[in-house]
Amino acid sequence: MSRIDGRTPEQLRPVTIERGWSKHAEGSVLISFGDTKVFCTASVTEGVPRWRKGSGEGWVTAEYSMLPRSTNTRGDRESVRGKIGGRTHEISRLIGRSLRAVIDYKALGENTIVLDCDVLQADGGTRTAAITGAYVALADAVSWAQKRKLVKHGRQPLTGTVSAVSVGIVDGTPLLDLCYEEDVRAETDMNVVCTGDGRFVEVQGTAEATPFDRKELNALLDLATGGCTELAAIQREVLAAVLTD
Amino acid sequence: MSRIDGRTPEQLRPVTIERGWSKHAEGSVLISFGDTKVFCTASVTEGVPRWRKGSGEGWVTAEYSMLPRSTNTRGDRESVRGKIGGRTHEISRLIGRSLRAVIDYKALGENTIVLDCDVLQADGGTRTAAITGAYVALADAVSWAQKRKLVKHGRQPLTGTVSAVSVGIVDGTPLLDLCYEEDVRAETDMNVVCTGDGRFVEVQGTAEATPFDRKELNALLDLATGGCTELAAIQREVLAAVLTD
Amino acid sequence: MSRIDGRTPEQLRPVTIERGWSKHAEGSVLISFGDTKVFCTASVTEGVPRWRKGSGEGWVTAEYSMLPRSTNTRGDRESVRGKIGGRTHEISRLIGRSLRAVIDYKALGENTIVLDCDVLQADGGTRTAAITGAYVALADAVSWAQKRKLVKHGRQPLTGTVSAVSVGIVDGTPLLDLCYEEDVRAETDMNVVCTGDGRFVEVQGTAEATPFDRKELNALLDLATGGCTELAAIQREVLAAVLTD
Amino acid sequence: MSRIDGRTPEQLRPVTIERGWSKHAEGSVLISFGDTKVFCTASVTEGVPRWRKGSGEGWVTAEYSMLPRSTNTRGDRESVRGKIGGRTHEISRLIGRSLRAVIDYKALGENTIVLDCDVLQADGGTRTAAITGAYVALADAVSWAQKRKLVKHGRQPLTGTVSAVSVGIVDGTPLLDLCYEEDVRAETDMNVVCTGDGRFVEVQGTAEATPFDRKELNALLDLATGGCTELAAIQREVLAAVLTD
Amino acid sequence: MSRIDGRTPEQLRPVTIERGWSKHAEGSVLISFGDTKVFCTASVTEGVPRWRKGSGEGWVTAEYSMLPRSTNTRGDRESVRGKIGGRTHEISRLIGRSLRAVIDYKALGENTIVLDCDVLQADGGTRTAAITGAYVALADAVSWAQKRKLVKHGRQPLTGTVSAVSVGIVDGTPLLDLCYEEDVRAETDMNVVCTGDGRFVEVQGTAEATPFDRKELNALLDLATGGCTELAAIQREVLAAVLTD
Amino acid sequence: MSRIDGRTPEQLRPVTIERGWSKHAEGSVLISFGDTKVFCTASVTEGVPRWRKGSGEGWVTAEYSMLPRSTNTRGDRESVRGKIGGRTHEISRLIGRSLRAVIDYKALGENTIVLDCDVLQADGGTRTAAITGAYVALADAVSWAQKRKLVKHGRQPLTGTVSAVSVGIVDGTPLLDLCYEEDVRAETDMNVVCTGDGRFVEVQGTAEATPFDRKELNALLDLATGGCTELAAIQREVLAAVLTD
Repeated sequence: MSRIDGRTPEQLRPVTIERGWSKHAEGSVLISFGDTKVFCTASVTEGVPRWRKGSGEGWVTAEYSMLPRSTNTRGDRESVRGKIGGRTHEISRLIGRSLRAVIDYKALGENTIVLDCDVLQADGGTRTAAITGAYVALADAVSWAQKRKLVKHGRQPLTGTVSAVSVGIVDGTPLLDLCYEEDVRAETDMNVVCTGDGRFVEVQGTAEATPFDRKELNALLDLATGGCTELAAIQREVLAAVLTD
Repeated sequence: MSRIDGRTPEQLRPVTIERGWSKHAEGSVLISFGDTKVFCTASVTEGVPRWRKGSGEGWVTAEYSMLPRSTNTRGDRESVRGKIGGRTHEISRLIGRSLRAVIDYKALGENTIVLDCDVLQADGGTRTAAITGAYVALADAVSWAQKRKLVKHGRQPLTGTVSAVSVGIVDGTPLLDLCYEEDVRAETDMNVVCTGDGRFVEVQGTAEATPFDRKELNALLDLATGGCTELAAIQREVLAAVLTD
Repeated sequence: MSRIDGRTPEQLRPVTIERGWSKHAEGSVLISFGDTKVFCTASVTEGVPRWRKGSGEGWVTAEYSMLPRSTNTRGDRESVRGKIGGRTHEISRLIGRSLRAVIDYKALGENTIVLDCDVLQADGGTRTAAITGAYVALADAVSWAQKRKLVKHGRQPLTGTVSAVSVGIVDGTPLLDLCYEEDVRAETDMNVVCTGDGRFVEVQGTAEATPFDRKELNALLDLATGGCTELAAIQREVLAAVLTD
Repeated sequence: MSRIDGRTPEQLRPVTIERGWSKHAEGSVLISFGDTKVFCTASVTEGVPRWRKGSGEGWVTAEYSMLPRSTNTRGDRESVRGKIGGRTHEISRLIGRSLRAVIDYKALGENTIVLDCDVLQADGGTRTAAITGAYVALADAVSWAQKRKLVKHGRQPLTGTVSAVSVGIVDGTPLLDLCYEEDVRAETDMNVVCTGDGRFVEVQGTAEATPFDRKELNALLDLATGGCTELAAIQREVLAAVLTD
Repeated sequence: MSRIDGRTPEQLRPVTIERGWSKHAEGSVLISFGDTKVFCTASVTEGVPRWRKGSGEGWVTAEYSMLPRSTNTRGDRESVRGKIGGRTHEISRLIGRSLRAVIDYKALGENTIVLDCDVLQADGGTRTAAITGAYVALADAVSWAQKRKLVKHGRQPLTGTVSAVSVGIVDGTPLLDLCYEEDVRAETDMNVVCTGDGRFVEVQGTAEATPFDRKELNALLDLATGGCTELAAIQREVLAAVLTD
Repeated sequence: MSRIDGRTPEQLRPVTIERGWSKHAEGSVLISFGDTKVFCTASVTEGVPRWRKGSGEGWVTAEYSMLPRSTNTRGDRESVRGKIGGRTHEISRLIGRSLRAVIDYKALGENTIVLDCDVLQADGGTRTAAITGAYVALADAVSWAQKRKLVKHGRQPLTGTVSAVSVGIVDGTPLLDLCYEEDVRAETDMNVVCTGDGRFVEVQGTAEATPFDRKELNALLDLATGGCTELAAIQREVLAAVLTD
């Protein structure tokens, strides 16, 4: 079976990650998964939220948002509506949890890193692109904090790498990294977040049309694990380059 | 290993489902999973949201909320704070999706059913109890609509049953149906929603402390499938009784 | 004249008060006035709001809310609408004032007690049931605080008891404790809050259809005083039983 | 006993009512009860709220607000805080109910009149001044609507007059029309709304410090009835003058 | 050309400024530019916002609002809508900036003055009347603070006077101080804020219908400068009178 | 005098305008004025807001926003705070007015174009870059609508071009196109919006530190007119290139 954009079922869309996209942020990345483009910045501030003060531990959190015309038809701004929608909340929380899974709070010390993931253009998989890009921005922000001695010597706040990909069953076939058109038609839709060593951080599978059985679930998990491994390799390669401030 | 409350790892807490708990709602249930108590009502209204008008199809949606003192320390009311938190949004959306998975929109016709799940007392697993109880309230509401001829003859809007349970890894052991104390200590936490025939509607696994591998994931899925099968049997039994208006 | 539900004009609906309905709250009660059911919890916290700090005096406040399907047709959640309606505000304030009328702030010390009154099922008189039930929850919370030595020895923070009832004129006849159908048809509607010794804490009378004269007002006050006396006896009786944590 | 401002217990503060204070509004009044000054406008619009369309009946509603520096220390604007407080809600509702008590909806036809009562300077009794002034603005607005034939010929939408006054017990003495200093010290505080023929529209009594008995209640009602009779006379006299547009 | 109200193009409407209009505020003014009436109060509080603490410098800010029926048709209250509109925000900011232009923060010391400008009746030029009136209220508030030694001896917090006026091109003719009817028909509309010595604090010109050229801009600036000079003279004269508390 | 970044006083920063930056929007541009980068999209929808229906005329409006980390320190999201700040409101309104100045509503017909201007990186002059970029996106959106026959044949909805630039006085010297560091130090700050033929659409000058006189104002207007002429030339050049969908 050939996919809408000519990919094989187990093929990712072209992935690009540009570091240093902002002159202000401590870490910043423009990531694209095909036509999905997400701008991720990591902002470091000394200190932690009130409920964590005096613990000696840091904090990492995330906010996700879509620009109004990142989609095919313009959506209202959440700032204008005066409230954040459920989907936005859900994805922001997912990104935050995913990145915290590879953070050693003690090593980070009482510093806070906020990841902002703003979708400039959406074509499916915005949350998985956001997690994958945010990890790179986070890694740059941690390096920045280490250079400025905000983070204590001799202990690495990052305990691993993290990336994410969507998988789904379309017309009975399990596919990796769904674009928007595939996502709309998927019977089952799953987002998987993995560490670089292939373990799971989040598994979120939803039967959109018909419930799925264990065999289908296994096929999807196999695809996702493979995709995350590829993404981890891309992250490593991108981070190998020295970033000049 | 013996659990905090003396259960074996694969044992559910005592489950009770009282139907007809409200004289106003078309379906209503007080469900308890141990000390977790959720009040679920199903409200039927003719007509559908604007974006669905003229489609000939119905709609099912859900709202979840916790009473301020359902927890150990009092939480602020979301109505007083003026906005709904991310967790509430996320769970409301999960309940809605889970129930829509067993609804035939065409058979429901242009009617809307809203499930309200209000947690009276929380001790872990509020979202899974809510889904399991809301299904029973939904079934009663559908019967009500059929008796009043709101729903066309000869076609069943419910395509199956749905129930949910939490599972998690505590001190290295996979456990079924976590109570609050276990939930807080879990390394990995998963909520699984299944149809009565054992297929998956939602799988949401989160590594709270350390990422989990495929083997652990499989152990959790096995436990959850067993738990949902038991819950489906309880639902069937409860619904077998005739409810007198 | 016989009433809709067969009562005499000066007869209360059946009243039940179940204490200890929550395992978390310091005081908790499920109260019913006929088909009206209100869940009242009392939450004790050390400390007082900022404007009262250092005064040596405590504070008592209340929040009232109706579950969306506590009524005949489902109402929107105030948390979803993002603001609290005028009626909710008004009743929350009434409950708070009523309970503060029997509190000795000095004896309570710098502790705060919040009464949450959530209407599970409404059939008229929700605010009067809430006040009557909240008093019992408050009394249990005060006992709890005394046992834990939060409240200083030798001085009782409760200076009396408080209960409330509605009265109204329907088809020219003054009636006690209106159910919803009577309330809708009432020409005049009054809520009266009394202490156990028969004095008034609040008197709120409203001409719904036609203004009322002094004679009608007196008839309503007579009925209400009688009703509150009966409710005070029920409260005393219920509180006489020892509550085992 | 002599009062703070030299009045006898049963004496009103000086009352002034200036009609025609706005060139835009269909009715407008600047009323003062001593140092309390409230600006009341009545705005007529054809049509009624959606829930009343096609009924052939009109609607009257009110909004009360205090300017930020109408009080001794500046209060935050409710528009800036983004929500209306409970007290504001409560008073707006009271004013609306009070005026609706003298409106014949059928005679008004499908027209809406909104009363805006903005407190320019507060010194106790703002709600009672607002009701008393709003009645005069309402009467002018009704005349305006009659002249423009918005209201059908031969039937008077106003079925009577309405005025309001506060009473309270200060140092054991019942007093009429409390100024702010008296209000703060009152053991019991009551707002009474009467029609011009001496019947009650609203009676709202609150024990601020100690519960009150029937005898005290009767003394307060006597005072209030007298005060409202005086206010009704002032309203009649003011309205007797022809207002030139 | 004769204007709607008979003025010449370079003529202001009658201006009145009444000081001491509130018994509570430290400075208060009722200003009218023809039928435009704005009530301005200045509230002094010791201390400054958090971001300015410890700087030794004071702060001045402003809030502008229109009463719902200050205009020809009633507008919704911003408190009821739950948010402040863009126009209100914009004008509040303009008033604040205009008054801060004549404040020496060091001389004011760590005190805050809030100017509230509430439009009682609108007929064009509400923001310019507000600035002109607020200056007088501010001057009185500063005197008040000096008398009470809140402001240190020997240094004047006010570095000059400030006033404002609108100008516009109507049917090709530049006009001073537009009333509402002229404002609606203006091709170009400009608000100019000047110090008493004729320099500019703000110049805000907007082409409503057709862009304007440099010559037109110059003609408008000439008119505005003349108008502000006249207003400064009125302010001086009004402030020359002693205000008795 | 040499400027921070080596420019002469009358020199613009490097300006780049990339068209077609979004695959979804009908017009889209990434514009940079030096390090200030704004992403502008133009969204066309058939129909107009309710208040304009049946007029045969179109509507153009704009929304401006800054990404949280577009600035040197991270700002809160307005969607999270639940309200839009005054500055955002003010700039959105300015952009909308500026673009409407070159729109023939009749020629546009009953279509709406929304311009979204999201600041990706801020270094002074974000509002002027937004207006200049939004014009190009608007021009592309109008062409798109013409090709699809949404806009009637034979009449051009755009009556001219529009661009904007900031000017200010820094250390006594008038400068064109201030970067952030200059903006912070400016005594006077002005934003000027011009049509391509050199006339003014908006002139907004503010004395930040000291009031400015007529001579200074003239110098700033001369600089701004020159800057806008240059920007108009760049716009023309960029639009000359054919954009392939």
